[in-house]
Amino acid sequence: MPMRILVLGGAGMIGRRLIDALVADGTLSGRPISAIHCFDVVEGGFASPLVSTSAGDIADADTITNLVEARPDVIFHLASVVSGEAETDFEKGYRINLVGMQNLLEAIRLAGDDYRPRLVFTSSIAVFGAPFEEPIRDTFLHAPLTSYGAQKAICELLISDYSRKGFVDGIGIRLPTIVVRPGKPNKAASGFFSGIIREPLAGVEAVLPVGDDVRHWVASPAAAVGFLLHAATLDTADLGDRRSLTMPGLSVTVGEMVDTLRRIAGDETVALIRREPDAAISRIVAGWPRDFSAERAANAGFKADPDFAAIVQAHIADERARKHETGGNAT
Amino acid sequence: MPMRILVLGGAGMIGRRLIDALVADGTLSGRPISAIHCFDVVEGGFASPLVSTSAGDIADADTITNLVEARPDVIFHLASVVSGEAETDFEKGYRINLVGMQNLLEAIRLAGDDYRPRLVFTSSIAVFGAPFEEPIRDTFLHAPLTSYGAQKAICELLISDYSRKGFVDGIGIRLPTIVVRPGKPNKAASGFFSGIIREPLAGVEAVLPVGDDVRHWVASPAAAVGFLLHAATLDTADLGDRRSLTMPGLSVTVGEMVDTLRRIAGDETVALIRREPDAAISRIVAGWPRDFSAERAANAGFKADPDFAAIVQAHIADERARKHETGGNAT
Repeated sequence: MPMRILVLGGAGMIGRRLIDALVADGTLSGRPISAIHCFDVVEGGFASPLVSTSAGDIADADTITNLVEARPDVIFHLASVVSGEAETDFEKGYRINLVGMQNLLEAIRLAGDDYRPRLVFTSSIAVFGAPFEEPIRDTFLHAPLTSYGAQKAICELLISDYSRKGFVDGIGIRLPTIVVRPGKPNKAASGFFSGIIREPLAGVEAVLPVGDDVRHWVASPAAAVGFLLHAATLDTADLGDRRSLTMPGLSVTVGEMVDTLRRIAGDETVALIRREPDAAISRIVAGWPRDFSAERAANAGFKADPDFAAIVQAHIADERARKHETGGNAT
Repeated sequence: MPMRILVLGGAGMIGRRLIDALVADGTLSGRPISAIHCFDVVEGGFASPLVSTSAGDIADADTITNLVEARPDVIFHLASVVSGEAETDFEKGYRINLVGMQNLLEAIRLAGDDYRPRLVFTSSIAVFGAPFEEPIRDTFLHAPLTSYGAQKAICELLISDYSRKGFVDGIGIRLPTIVVRPGKPNKAASGFFSGIIREPLAGVEAVLPVGDDVRHWVASPAAAVGFLLHAATLDTADLGDRRSLTMPGLSVTVGEMVDTLRRIAGDETVALIRREPDAAISRIVAGWPRDFSAERAANAGFKADPDFAAIVQAHIADERARKHETGGNAT
């Protein structure tokens, strides 16, 4: 039976990579993909005739009901207001990140007893808040310190409960910080983790606002897509009633990141990293989790990046491919 | 400045005892109580002129907004569909137990910057689900196995987030199973924990559906009222951003309960306990938490019952007072 796939938030960085991977493979769980629908707040553009697109507001119940009426077999829910925006715009954060999920789960539940799609939700390690145990195990309390983290934690509880009741076959995957993010620097407090690799490799100066001893939990964009595809295909019976998992990442220090960049790209590249300590960013970063055991995810077959060098090499390969595609003009 | 108090779910067993205690004391946090409003799905009847009452639907946003417009200084939120009903009526459970809280928090937030009442919410140890660590510490994952537990866990996350943002000064207290509940036996799976004490003391046979080795986490109705009053008056700054606490209970086995009853009321009373093992109830109870460290609550000054004998004695005293009030007809 052919497979229909819905990707909510499909026009973002991870969503596009996911859709490209699905198109390239042409199958999911051994079944041919007959249709992929990309829904986002902006219209996504995809070359493949397999992919249709639409744009709208995920917090509008009718919009979501219409998307669910097509009865996709697998729904990837990646749509989210990011951490910083959910903090500054409280109402928008709850509307998009919580009401959006409530609408989706209700649309699925009300679609009928014979409809029980796989739902893959991108949660976040922001469900955890200091003080931590270290490493953080799979049984550690969710005590978020941001509205974004609270919304993700609530969505996880809803997914487990709706799955337990048999209304949906859901799984939440807590993504590490994605490094190296392509594109322009952004204002996220975590932006420098990508910036100190991406900018120097492009011959541009990058600011490092924290000390070399700062440790963080990271995964590559390719690993994130791997997590999503695995979550869409694994046997959820093995998860029991705890439907969300911390994805396996790498726990690396800034110093290790810089050393890796030096080994791969040399002293001249590393010289483009300008150390400019920022007390505010250092304080924010100090409140983030740094290391996880992620045993359940490993047991469920999720695969971390092998090491940080592989993450840097993958970014270099991605950028080469992008330059090739765009005739030399990296965007 | 006089203190205005709103009790949502004030007509229930704990709510009535709380209101009676507030009326008897006449003050809270050293301030005289000028008004207590009891809101519930049914109208509560109270003798004191301090207490006004109204009945309505907590899931109706306008109803809650009207209650909050009176700007109570302290709001006790005890209103809840119980575990069994939330499991059989999925929509009602979410409407009362989650939408009710969302309405309340939004009404408070939108009431203005200068309004930041203390909100005391009765959560539940149902936020925890097997497999457990033992004892369960304050850093253990919330992985509920019922919709009721999921709703309570979500409310806790909302209270912490709204408190962190400064919209409310909230605290959630996870009550142990309340033993001895007065009144008639109910159909709750946990009902026998009260029944095996209450019925024999009243000269009536009680069914014990589980083995003597079953261990459970209990507190008396009086302890529960003590938790509520302490939660209304303590300094929440000490809680940090984790605004909910497991209340201190007693971890006792059924065998210990029966032995205690024997010491207090004799063999004849205990002979009214009829052992009738029930596999279904045994299975449900096996999934419940049995022991907690409850260190944060102890550090915050919450006091458990001294021992199970004190719980039984308090029940006997309560029943005597009730018989006295009603001229010998216990209800």
